[in-house]
Amino acid sequence: MVNYRDERLDRTFAALVDPTRRAILARLEREDGASVSALARPFAIKLPAVMKHLDVLDDAGLITRSKVGRIVTVRLRPEPMQEAMDWLRRYERFWSKSLDRLAGYAEGKEAEARKKRR
Amino acid sequence: MVNYRDERLDRTFAALVDPTRRAILARLEREDGASVSALARPFAIKLPAVMKHLDVLDDAGLITRSKVGRIVTVRLRPEPMQEAMDWLRRYERFWSKSLDRLAGYAEGKEAEARKKRR
Repeated sequence: MVNYRDERLDRTFAALVDPTRRAILARLEREDGASVSALARPFAIKLPAVMKHLDVLDDAGLITRSKVGRIVTVRLRPEPMQEAMDWLRRYERFWSKSLDRLAGYAEGKEAEARKKRR
Repeated sequence: MVNYRDERLDRTFAALVDPTRRAILARLEREDGASVSALARPFAIKLPAVMKHLDVLDDAGLITRSKVGRIVTVRLRPEPMQEAMDWLRRYERFWSKSLDRLAGYAEGKEAEARKKRR
């Protein structure tokens, strides 16, 4: 029953569960590459804990790490998120349906008000 | 540091980690409501295990359960996924960037080939 695509989605969603990991991804989205120590700075957790989060992100294929001398630079690799988004996208029609209903309701109310004004 | 929106996203992504839970949501996307026993049928796991998955989906606000007599009907409530998708959407520009690069490369190759033919 479980296939590769499922396993990749498992890893992607699991990586996205933690707010610290999401904050790291959000920062890498704004900056093109950051050192591990720079990434760790805003968090109240210790460096080894940040390293563990980076391991999870790396295992999910969401970041790359490259080392030059003693500096490890972390970069975003958002491709796995595309698959996660494609998975979510099929539910979008439900939101648009609710929006359509809302728009229909608003239009109905407006037409009613117009009738009363006549 | 943690706020309500973060907590909701935690719960949504955590609910989506499991392939059985994703399969349940996918089925509810196709059918408008299904009984618990009908939902459990395709899976190799026992009913109590399915019930636990439904609890996780319910806690994340992704399904509703209503009971009439002895039949519990499960329905999709996909709204929390919208927030998850909005979160993922900001990374979309990275994929379009890679697609642009790919398109640029293909166009370059084509132009080269045209020049040679002349």
